[in-house]
Amino acid sequence: MPNTKAYAAQAATTPLAPFSFDRRTPGDHDVQIEILYCGVCHSDIHQVRDEWGGSIYPMVPGHEIVGRVTAVGSHVKKFAVGDLAGVGCFVDSCRTCANCQEGLEQYCDEGMVGTYNGRERVTNAPTYGGYSTQIVVDENYTLKISDKLPLEGVAPLLCAGITTYSPLRYVGVRKGHKVGVLGLGGLGHMAVKFAASFGAEVTMLSSSPSKEADAKKLGAHHFALTSDPATMNGLQNHFDFILNTVSAQHDYSTYLNLLKTNGTMIVVGVPPTPSAVPAFNLIFKRRSIIGSLIGGIKETQEMLDYCAEHHIVSDVEVIPVQEVNEAYERMIKGDVRYRFVIDIASLK
Amino acid sequence: MPNTKAYAAQAATTPLAPFSFDRRTPGDHDVQIEILYCGVCHSDIHQVRDEWGGSIYPMVPGHEIVGRVTAVGSHVKKFAVGDLAGVGCFVDSCRTCANCQEGLEQYCDEGMVGTYNGRERVTNAPTYGGYSTQIVVDENYTLKISDKLPLEGVAPLLCAGITTYSPLRYVGVRKGHKVGVLGLGGLGHMAVKFAASFGAEVTMLSSSPSKEADAKKLGAHHFALTSDPATMNGLQNHFDFILNTVSAQHDYSTYLNLLKTNGTMIVVGVPPTPSAVPAFNLIFKRRSIIGSLIGGIKETQEMLDYCAEHHIVSDVEVIPVQEVNEAYERMIKGDVRYRFVIDIASLK
Repeated sequence: MPNTKAYAAQAATTPLAPFSFDRRTPGDHDVQIEILYCGVCHSDIHQVRDEWGGSIYPMVPGHEIVGRVTAVGSHVKKFAVGDLAGVGCFVDSCRTCANCQEGLEQYCDEGMVGTYNGRERVTNAPTYGGYSTQIVVDENYTLKISDKLPLEGVAPLLCAGITTYSPLRYVGVRKGHKVGVLGLGGLGHMAVKFAASFGAEVTMLSSSPSKEADAKKLGAHHFALTSDPATMNGLQNHFDFILNTVSAQHDYSTYLNLLKTNGTMIVVGVPPTPSAVPAFNLIFKRRSIIGSLIGGIKETQEMLDYCAEHHIVSDVEVIPVQEVNEAYERMIKGDVRYRFVIDIASLK
Repeated sequence: MPNTKAYAAQAATTPLAPFSFDRRTPGDHDVQIEILYCGVCHSDIHQVRDEWGGSIYPMVPGHEIVGRVTAVGSHVKKFAVGDLAGVGCFVDSCRTCANCQEGLEQYCDEGMVGTYNGRERVTNAPTYGGYSTQIVVDENYTLKISDKLPLEGVAPLLCAGITTYSPLRYVGVRKGHKVGVLGLGGLGHMAVKFAASFGAEVTMLSSSPSKEADAKKLGAHHFALTSDPATMNGLQNHFDFILNTVSAQHDYSTYLNLLKTNGTMIVVGVPPTPSAVPAFNLIFKRRSIIGSLIGGIKETQEMLDYCAEHHIVSDVEVIPVQEVNEAYERMIKGDVRYRFVIDIASLK
């Protein structure tokens, strides 16, 4: 049973602090991974603080994991000791429902098993995430990681990357499309990179004028200040797609009106209360709203391979784990460009 | 200038009453149509009573029009005197924007010209609808009507028919799909007929147990009572599509939860205030909501031809125009199976 050092929350109201526990002994199909980097996702904060309810403590957050394989089970085929490996938001699912069969494990009928704050299917043991020195995961839920990219920039691809890549692919974003990205944070900055990489004309929609320079550096062709009525008026019926990453409360209809006929708003952020949708705003231009959740294993691998080929990584600030509580506070203020990543060497 | 008898509202608070006016003299591209039947759409009530604002009085409602051509302009090619003809929800549009060029005149960038309660593009004269003995319309905005079907049942196809046909075609409903139709009224009864005709397995979702027999007669394979929690629970993650025809206030999330992964709720009803949409309900199954507005001229003709081929008409109650105010009150109570159609002979 590999003993593991970690940072954990003991309750919704306490800061993350040192913690240690035993990972399961690797089974026949498992890979054991020494974690090198783990990204810090906004959903870590929501779950640590039990803002979505049902949190399991102690909680070791982290689902943007890259590391190196240190042991493999006897039946493991995809990985060998020494390989780079990644783990995203889930580590298991039922494997038999229609969604799992189609490679859409994130929509598993029985529910995916979260990399942390979940329970293992057979043992019901709580799962612990990537703010830790190692992890043991079934090889079918483990991703292959290229050695061509800086690993700290790869870690956030496992959540922020696939969360934006998957819906942009699903709706078919390509050259000739006008794409708006609403909100420039962990998700938004990846959405800009992917949409631009797919050939679309990308506009960053943000309420912070200070983000214009960064948005353009990330690949946005235009910047639109959402607080400026003239700008917003000029963008009515303009976009084929808007990828909405905002999880603060906001008015969907303002942005629906920026979509042209047949345009689609992709929702990946979860505001704390439901947003009002006036039917007229949809009906009068055949507009749609679609939600999307991370991506399946197959598509996550496709995304990682695409990133390696196109040299796409997340823009990150690397921190030692000892600074994670401060990092949470900065994230809540939007003060991070654009993802904190924990250097797990700091845990050892 | 053809003098025309009609029923009109003089103000938002007065009942419809006899009225007469002059139609424009047919131009080179116009057809003059003696109206035989005109359907009564719920949007007639909204506009007569100025519930959407901006109503123009006197108002002659009616945009589900079938009749016979009595005169044609010198350049008219599609119609000859004696032909059957139909007019739907609009009689003109800019003809040059991308939407008009694609045959999506209903989404015209400059706004379609409503068959009534609109203004002609050049003259700015108010438009008057089908509760009248005749109408003059550009041939490009006039539909060809088959003589194979009872005309009173054809009239509602021009609005209720195309409003449901168009989105079911747009999302690609076909054999193998499970389709729910929410609300059994003028729109809902056509949605059931079309979805079943396209090969889908159709479930009527209604809060009125009394509608089960009718729903099945219309072609629904199943009936689900929306007020029964056990029934609703059994339909979680069940449908590929739900066509939502309800214009009363209701909770979208209840019905979103009935959609399987990648499922879509099509919204054609307009509740009086915006509906709340919890992002989680969309995100956790990649569900979407799409709005749709009637259909363009080309698709409306396609729908009429499809109906002639497949013997699809609306189920109607034919009334003399003198009973239209009473019909409005019955419609508000949902007491019509499933569309009132005015026999325009009663106006002559």
